[in-house]
Amino acid sequence: MAEIPVVEKVLKLNDEIAGMNRETLAAAGVPCLNLMGSPGCGKTALLEATLDALAGELAVGIVAGDIATTRDAERLVAHTPHVTQINTGGSCHLEAHQVRQGIANLPLEKLDLLIIENVGNLICPTSFDLGEGARVAMFSVPEGHDKPAKHPSIVLTADLVLLGKIDLLPYVPFVKETFLADLANMREDLATLPLSVVTGEGMGEWCDWIRKFVGRRPS
Amino acid sequence: MAEIPVVEKVLKLNDEIAGMNRETLAAAGVPCLNLMGSPGCGKTALLEATLDALAGELAVGIVAGDIATTRDAERLVAHTPHVTQINTGGSCHLEAHQVRQGIANLPLEKLDLLIIENVGNLICPTSFDLGEGARVAMFSVPEGHDKPAKHPSIVLTADLVLLGKIDLLPYVPFVKETFLADLANMREDLATLPLSVVTGEGMGEWCDWIRKFVGRRPS
Repeated sequence: MAEIPVVEKVLKLNDEIAGMNRETLAAAGVPCLNLMGSPGCGKTALLEATLDALAGELAVGIVAGDIATTRDAERLVAHTPHVTQINTGGSCHLEAHQVRQGIANLPLEKLDLLIIENVGNLICPTSFDLGEGARVAMFSVPEGHDKPAKHPSIVLTADLVLLGKIDLLPYVPFVKETFLADLANMREDLATLPLSVVTGEGMGEWCDWIRKFVGRRPS
Repeated sequence: MAEIPVVEKVLKLNDEIAGMNRETLAAAGVPCLNLMGSPGCGKTALLEATLDALAGELAVGIVAGDIATTRDAERLVAHTPHVTQINTGGSCHLEAHQVRQGIANLPLEKLDLLIIENVGNLICPTSFDLGEGARVAMFSVPEGHDKPAKHPSIVLTADLVLLGKIDLLPYVPFVKETFLADLANMREDLATLPLSVVTGEGMGEWCDWIRKFVGRRPS
């Protein structure tokens, strides 16, 4: 059982650095979202569409986490100049010290919002506070309706649930009622937003949720 | 840096128990596959279709890993009586000692094949030997073509790559050439099988791969 105190120490150090991130961001007046979801649930595509929808209205910085490659950053830099890619080198989640390095690369004074795109994983990222102001848990239709029930931690710590790729509903055996009932069983208070970057459905509500989060008036 | 020796100790203990699993399975003459992939890539649906396709030919046991719920086991038990569910209670991967407990619940003397359905995660499960004879890495079309490049470890340790849900190719922006080129860049030797449990495409080749793995004649 020798590993348990060590893990606690790692998490304690992480929480301390997350607190520093929170202070840095608050001092700069930059609200911060932590976007989490499965590999391939559509986080990067959602951010591309979100950046386009909010262009000229909000200056958004992105810290994108991945095990390897800079592909997400390469995609996102076409939509905002303020992108940093973090390669975790095998680690399955972002930690606060990595985000701290990411923040240091961004011109906070120019930003209205920072979005952290976490490593694609429904499990481990939920244990690591990064200094965010809110957590967005993203699921997607082709993953199946059972994912919230199977991954309680991401649901229990989320401020908003997104259900992406709803344009694929006609083609896959996804039972929306079960998805929503499982969520409600765990968290009656938790808002869920179905959306699709292909059809644009739900994008207006999502952008309004962001506007409210950063203290702006909904459109 | 205190955590590094502890992690090594955990992995060393895991490898010892994996070796015991390997001996137990070899003594019983039961080949074992470790099936890994994202949450919602279609592992359980593939196993349902595989069990049906091999019914009356191979007696297959399943050890299904999940953070929470017994939903996979409930689905699979309709297709084989030999199913054990392991709830990892928050841990993002199966470890050898859990599989050892799972094996103890199954009548090995009746089985021709054991399939371990790992926790849905492209990252951490790749670090844990479970005593399997081969690893099957499963991706799926809606996750996007960039997943192998972003998750090198699962590719580097796999014996076969499956690309599931190819029936969704007309509806999503998946570039098959990039997917295959990224895989070839990492592993020239690695076979890739595209398949769909909806249309049945590729299922014959997958079942033949299994037949070969367990030393039977292809159909």
